[in-house]
Amino acid sequence: MPDRIPDDSVGLVTPVVQHFSEPLTLRSGKVLQSYDLIYETYGTLNQARSNAVLICHALSGNHHAAGYHSMDDTSPGWWDSAIGPGKPIDTNRFFVVCLNNLGGCDGSTGPTSINPETGRVYGPDFPIVTVRDWVISQARLADVLGIDKWAAVVGGSLGGMQVLRWSIQFPERIDHAVIIASAPKLSAQNIAFNEVARQAIAKDPDFHNGWYQEQETLPKAGLMQARMLGHLTYLSDDAMRQKFGRELREGNLNFSFAPEFQVESYLHYQGEKFSTRFDANTYMLMTKALDYFDPAAEYDNDLAACLEQTQCRFFLVSFTTDWRFSPARSEEIVNALIQADKDVSYACVESESGHDAFLMPIPRYLDLFAAYMDGVAARCCGGAA
Amino acid sequence: MPDRIPDDSVGLVTPVVQHFSEPLTLRSGKVLQSYDLIYETYGTLNQARSNAVLICHALSGNHHAAGYHSMDDTSPGWWDSAIGPGKPIDTNRFFVVCLNNLGGCDGSTGPTSINPETGRVYGPDFPIVTVRDWVISQARLADVLGIDKWAAVVGGSLGGMQVLRWSIQFPERIDHAVIIASAPKLSAQNIAFNEVARQAIAKDPDFHNGWYQEQETLPKAGLMQARMLGHLTYLSDDAMRQKFGRELREGNLNFSFAPEFQVESYLHYQGEKFSTRFDANTYMLMTKALDYFDPAAEYDNDLAACLEQTQCRFFLVSFTTDWRFSPARSEEIVNALIQADKDVSYACVESESGHDAFLMPIPRYLDLFAAYMDGVAARCCGGAA
Repeated sequence: MPDRIPDDSVGLVTPVVQHFSEPLTLRSGKVLQSYDLIYETYGTLNQARSNAVLICHALSGNHHAAGYHSMDDTSPGWWDSAIGPGKPIDTNRFFVVCLNNLGGCDGSTGPTSINPETGRVYGPDFPIVTVRDWVISQARLADVLGIDKWAAVVGGSLGGMQVLRWSIQFPERIDHAVIIASAPKLSAQNIAFNEVARQAIAKDPDFHNGWYQEQETLPKAGLMQARMLGHLTYLSDDAMRQKFGRELREGNLNFSFAPEFQVESYLHYQGEKFSTRFDANTYMLMTKALDYFDPAAEYDNDLAACLEQTQCRFFLVSFTTDWRFSPARSEEIVNALIQADKDVSYACVESESGHDAFLMPIPRYLDLFAAYMDGVAARCCGGAA
Repeated sequence: MPDRIPDDSVGLVTPVVQHFSEPLTLRSGKVLQSYDLIYETYGTLNQARSNAVLICHALSGNHHAAGYHSMDDTSPGWWDSAIGPGKPIDTNRFFVVCLNNLGGCDGSTGPTSINPETGRVYGPDFPIVTVRDWVISQARLADVLGIDKWAAVVGGSLGGMQVLRWSIQFPERIDHAVIIASAPKLSAQNIAFNEVARQAIAKDPDFHNGWYQEQETLPKAGLMQARMLGHLTYLSDDAMRQKFGRELREGNLNFSFAPEFQVESYLHYQGEKFSTRFDANTYMLMTKALDYFDPAAEYDNDLAACLEQTQCRFFLVSFTTDWRFSPARSEEIVNALIQADKDVSYACVESESGHDAFLMPIPRYLDLFAAYMDGVAARCCGGAA
């Protein structure tokens, strides 16, 4: 292992693209005739094929959850704090799989891919996908990898919704569900924030109703606004106060509309960075998947009844200052699981980092997470490697 | 009084425009050579000129706080629930004055007015105004009206900031300060929301750097987004859940990006209505005035030291589910006033309506408000009329 990659990293990793030629009928009724899924794996699948862990990503995530793509990489995968040798998802014990979801923009088939039926990019013609569609496509990837049952399926935020859906959709294929900073469905307020973000994108004249790629433009301004708003809601009021307060970039009010408070510069920077990295159609799709997720809807809004069919153990984590997916939302799931007489552990972790906490190396959070994953390893892979 | 105007209304009212030819040097150093302020009055000024109450408006408010402009008016002024005969601000006792602030778009000099120096509309050339500038212009209006001292200055949200500034700037000209759902300064989160709203406007190609009037366009999309976001943050999560839940307009998911949840339609409607009613440059200015307000900054961030100089009595109200200006923000003011040994009353009112509660006819709120104003009347106007 080269010098400058830390010892507790999974090291250099290479994504793999898997092609699927069996058509996939989506929740909307539309059919994807074929598609690719890009994924990474860390650790080794044991002989019993019982130590596999699936990581589900959130709105702007992808398949690159841990490690580095090259020696020039300045930062590791998005959940490197939790995945690696000796980390909560210990790659000495577990075989970890993370994929880019359908509709994504990092290598799996999505709006930036070529539509085989037209020879043009899909753009806005890419069908709206739901959490259920993702879970079904993830199950097909598990089939390819020869994984009948995941030791655990793990995810935060929108990723946690995929975990919950796994427990309902494929109860016999998941041993443990780890659901972090998530919710059983969005509130009207959550949906409203998503719609404001979508409007920012849709009203950008460079969006061209989603055909910006063909126009050789990018709706950067719209995507930047969407991200600024998103980012702002992922942070807590406390975290922003501590990080920025009312500090001014130049010490004085400038009586103009240029960004002058530090918090404004920070959000501009984050928004701009995102606006060239991420695909606008994908952002629209991902927020819609969030809005639509509501597994209890088919059970007369009785979440406990919906969760009756689950067979796995559950572990949920929430964070005190997360107001986008507050502890109360996690507790709705916990209470429904208790009512359905399921095995559930739950921790609400003290943190000032808002919704973003689920990605951060908060000692108490990682300790609890590691302790739970120890139990998973003991049950599924016969303890430590 | 015509039939269909309610008995407890101030009835038909007519705004008055007052021209000021004495130059006003603003906080930014820029000078307005002359300007107009439009205002309305309700009730009668007593002989002692001791029963005058000034109402300060919030971000999107104006001078039309109560009553009707014509028999065709479908709705009364924006604070009709609190102003009128027998209401908390009882026009049988008080002489009530409400003006449109400088920089506004409803009749006072602002971005849509003609700049006498150029003969063109001010547009983006209208200088950034601060809460202090407003209070100084309001004092000049008081001079014109022959009001040496207000029995009370009253306002909610950004209006409450003006009240607080009155108590500091002109301690000898205010007897009671009524500050509702307000804050001593914005938090980084508040500023961030404002900046996202401003970006939405500024990036609208119809904004033309603020010269849209000359281009005969309106940045409707940007203003609509700004309002959708603003409106969403004025409501509580609870209020939105009760009002909209996850109800769908057509009962079914439509797997498209058209608004389909009720909350989306509602916000679109509110945003569209606002986008033709309100001026975009004014919106930019008003949010900047909010960002800049921070009276304690000149006192080494010691709010109690800043409030030493005040001489009036204070009444503050906050609302339990207001997360834009939470009870904790009102309590910062209350605690500083206690520390400075001032006369202060405070109520945190149970409400599910978020920040919007300050405009709503919540019985406990109006009762407390009326009881306090009774005391104001007893001290300033010799009791009931």
